[in-house]
Amino acid sequence: MEPRSSREVFAGRLIRVTVETWPAGEREVVSHPGAVGVVALTDPGDVVLVRQFREAVRAHVLEIPAGILDVDGELPADAAARELFEETGHRARLIERLGEVLTSPGFADERIELFMAETPDDADGPGEPEVEVVRMPFAEALEAVRDGRIVDAKTVAGLSLTAARRGARWA
Amino acid sequence: MEPRSSREVFAGRLIRVTVETWPAGEREVVSHPGAVGVVALTDPGDVVLVRQFREAVRAHVLEIPAGILDVDGELPADAAARELFEETGHRARLIERLGEVLTSPGFADERIELFMAETPDDADGPGEPEVEVVRMPFAEALEAVRDGRIVDAKTVAGLSLTAARRGARWA
Repeated sequence: MEPRSSREVFAGRLIRVTVETWPAGEREVVSHPGAVGVVALTDPGDVVLVRQFREAVRAHVLEIPAGILDVDGELPADAAARELFEETGHRARLIERLGEVLTSPGFADERIELFMAETPDDADGPGEPEVEVVRMPFAEALEAVRDGRIVDAKTVAGLSLTAARRGARWA
Repeated sequence: MEPRSSREVFAGRLIRVTVETWPAGEREVVSHPGAVGVVALTDPGDVVLVRQFREAVRAHVLEIPAGILDVDGELPADAAARELFEETGHRARLIERLGEVLTSPGFADERIELFMAETPDDADGPGEPEVEVVRMPFAEALEAVRDGRIVDAKTVAGLSLTAARRGARWA
């Protein structure tokens, strides 16, 4: 289904905003290129997270490594492996699709594909200087979801889907 | 922390968009009033979900009842109970805060507070005509997260946090 009419009100480098007319009324819609995120697990069972300043929320946020789908023709799984390496220096060995999430279907079309990867215990590259790598046991990451240290939606979803794959118990 | 400078490029009825200058570069930021979502559980252990057309993604999406924080002075828990009743006709009995999620901290400030509510088995009001109420056992909702029938991020987070509270097993 498409809107009856649509007018663009902003075209930026990352997002585009349109005001659309639908049977239910006017909708303000943010178009986003989409993104990937990856839950990377080391052999000892740690998850490799990143903490970085997110200007939009004026705060440092603890997240799974992730990035925008902005390389033409790149497969999402390859983009996830690339982002993991660029942000943390960790290489993805096995990479497996977990699923996807719509982050804000009330006003944005952003869709994030989520992956799970195995990664060696040691980083192989420098990572990004503005990104702090945070490692913790997978069970502690689930605890951090429960107690509110992790609030980023794609990270909550990625960790929960990984827990589901592993038959983990929330306890 | 605040940006060095900021210019508004769009002011709509729901969202506002600014282009901000930060030490790391320009950021396109969507401001959103915030929202609430509620995982409502009946006595027999069903969860009360809604399916509605989401114009931004051109699709029907299965979600927890939710709504924008747009009533001045209303407490988030009251907003969650109100949205549950308006959308599904179900009244919230006990309501408890589960936590919150940032849906898209890369470009939006949207924050959704998540609640868990007990609700009677029968609806007490008509709900909204454009919203289809979908009931299923809680375990089936977790299965729907795993298999991709549920992809809305706040819903994945709300169900996962509820599973965590209940000590449920992903299996």
